Amino acid sequence: MSNKIQIFDTTLRDGEQVPGCQLATEEKINVARELEALGVDVIEAGFPISSPGDFLSVIGISRAVKDPVVCGLTRAKQEDIDVAAEALRYAKRGRIHTGIGASDVHIKHKFKSSREQVLEQGVWAVKYAKSKGFEVEFYAEDAGRADLAFLASMVEAVIAAGADVVNIPDTTGYCLPHLYQKRIEYLVENVSNIHKAVISVHCHNDLGMATANTIAGLIGGARQAEVTINGIGERAGNTSLEEVVMTVKTHKDLGLYTDIKTEKIYGISQLVSRMMRMPVQPNKAIVGKNAFSHSSGIHQDGFLKHAENYEIINPADVGVDCSSIVLTARSGRAALRHRLELLGHKVEGADLDHIYENFLIIADEKKNVTDNDLVVLVANTPVLAG
Amino acid sequence: MSNKIQIFDTTLRDGEQVPGCQLATEEKINVARELEALGVDVIEAGFPISSPGDFLSVIGISRAVKDPVVCGLTRAKQEDIDVAAEALRYAKRGRIHTGIGASDVHIKHKFKSSREQVLEQGVWAVKYAKSKGFEVEFYAEDAGRADLAFLASMVEAVIAAGADVVNIPDTTGYCLPHLYQKRIEYLVENVSNIHKAVISVHCHNDLGMATANTIAGLIGGARQAEVTINGIGERAGNTSLEEVVMTVKTHKDLGLYTDIKTEKIYGISQLVSRMMRMPVQPNKAIVGKNAFSHSSGIHQDGFLKHAENYEIINPADVGVDCSSIVLTARSGRAALRHRLELLGHKVEGADLDHIYENFLIIADEKKNVTDNDLVVLVANTPVLAG
Repeated sequence: MSNKIQIFDTTLRDGEQVPGCQLATEEKINVARELEALGVDVIEAGFPISSPGDFLSVIGISRAVKDPVVCGLTRAKQEDIDVAAEALRYAKRGRIHTGIGASDVHIKHKFKSSREQVLEQGVWAVKYAKSKGFEVEFYAEDAGRADLAFLASMVEAVIAAGADVVNIPDTTGYCLPHLYQKRIEYLVENVSNIHKAVISVHCHNDLGMATANTIAGLIGGARQAEVTINGIGERAGNTSLEEVVMTVKTHKDLGLYTDIKTEKIYGISQLVSRMMRMPVQPNKAIVGKNAFSHSSGIHQDGFLKHAENYEIINPADVGVDCSSIVLTARSGRAALRHRLELLGHKVEGADLDHIYENFLIIADEKKNVTDNDLVVLVANTPVLAG
Repeated sequence: MSNKIQIFDTTLRDGEQVPGCQLATEEKINVARELEALGVDVIEAGFPISSPGDFLSVIGISRAVKDPVVCGLTRAKQEDIDVAAEALRYAKRGRIHTGIGASDVHIKHKFKSSREQVLEQGVWAVKYAKSKGFEVEFYAEDAGRADLAFLASMVEAVIAAGADVVNIPDTTGYCLPHLYQKRIEYLVENVSNIHKAVISVHCHNDLGMATANTIAGLIGGARQAEVTINGIGERAGNTSLEEVVMTVKTHKDLGLYTDIKTEKIYGISQLVSRMMRMPVQPNKAIVGKNAFSHSSGIHQDGFLKHAENYEIINPADVGVDCSSIVLTARSGRAALRHRLELLGHKVEGADLDHIYENFLIIADEKKNVTDNDLVVLVANTPVLAG
């Protein structure tokens, strides 16, 4: 088994279906070009039958990019697959992503069907999509809650029908990492033809576990991760591309790698956030405004002594200029001294104690202490101003 | 071992030290009262020696709440512990949270010390804090990267010195869940007096793993979780209270519980976000604006048939009014029919197909289709308007 993880980006499909995030075709093509530059392996470009706009976007993206596989979503229905095949006709490498519910709750309440019927329909859909001449990925919807033995029989049947990739989504974001990993391991061990397909993981963040579940799935044997920029997606969102890629890069002991050009991460995060009007919270991992900033005294002191004390990722690796030190009432003497030094004042010992006391008075009143405040502070401290 | 998980909230300490999040004493007291109403077991109220404002806040919170333990942070230094003891003197139950670095990178580069020396200083600090008559929690800073055998010897020594709680923080947010769990299990198995103390987990979200690591730690035997509202905290933040509490509640198979009144979660999330000027991104788990909204056709259809298809948490359980259906270009007929029905128009079959086609044209142009748009759409559709 290769240790390369295929990055399947679904920002333009599962991400774009979020309220308020819809993009015009031109905007989608722009994002797709940036995803290509980022180095993703697969771009899920849309759900062609869902609307005329989505259909046109899949055509536009198919023409615009050359390296990534371009993928279109369908239900296990003939008209969906026909329209997707039509939309993907210009793709250098096109993929039809078809599937059906796998959990009893979905089979019973959503499809009002039986295990036998959905399995049959899934197999039919894979064969039909395959007959169109595309790569085929099959999704077993709500696999996270599906009966494992039934899921295995479904996966075996769709691989026999020609599926190149089998997607085991945790549709509702319900799984815990160790349980999701066991699901993937069960499939690796119990599906006789599993080596003929790539296992894909597609997680949702309803309990905040999407990244951990995705990594657990990769440890379990999956080799494709379905992700979005900034983790956008319905409800609590999908798995964040940036978190998965940087976890794989940071934990070399996993023995995995991706082809993502990580230094482009911050730029595309900003682009997608702006274009889709989806703010990234300051405390978002990897791409949040505060992800690499240090403000408490203990942390600033440690950070200034040795960045590795508090930083496991070099900000430059994800395209962020540099770690920033922010001065607040929780900052210590080391940070204050450092900032004063940058302003041209070398202060130590009792002088530092003195100015630090005055600094704290300002800092308790203000949220952030700026360089301007420090200039005033220095001017009012005779020992320094001289 | 009890299955109750103690919730240790550090919104007002580790959360409040974020750039721009500083609160005035009165504001901190308000948040502390809400945390008490929420049912947290411990409130970390501040780092008393860090500034006069923080000192006063710990005093104010100690006087304001009666059920939760009130905790103050210190370094392993006499002056820190003296000031914390002073600040906590009005607490019904006070706790001093003291500690020192445990990883070689922190010992060498931050403390410029040796394993022997930091261990000795840690033991001294626990004894000194204990002599002040408070509960004592010891943090082994950067335990996530510490040598395991050394960490175990440190934990054993501080428990022998009187520590009631031992905190095993993943300070840099480096750990993966299965590895963090193994660390906790190693301590449970190798520290002879471990049953005399509660193990606490304190995780950071630098790789997006904080919640998963916390849950893994609880599975491994920890019985206190250190969390913040909305996961605020330095860099990528701390573990989210709401994610941990709802994971424990949703996964009854874990056999754990908390005393959190979950229906108060959304209210305090909004309060903290507003007061600390820290926006919550729409796709934040549990408390994001979109956490319970469904917009794609496949999901809306499934959701309307049976909420459990796509929802693992009842929004009312966390104080959110109800799941909302948003209409966009990715919405299907089922959602449109549902919304029209709410507006008083029952539409089926060919009529629905007809109006759906017109709906898609509007939806491709607009981000969200509002009730007003639907009213106009209906007015322009002869079969319905009549």
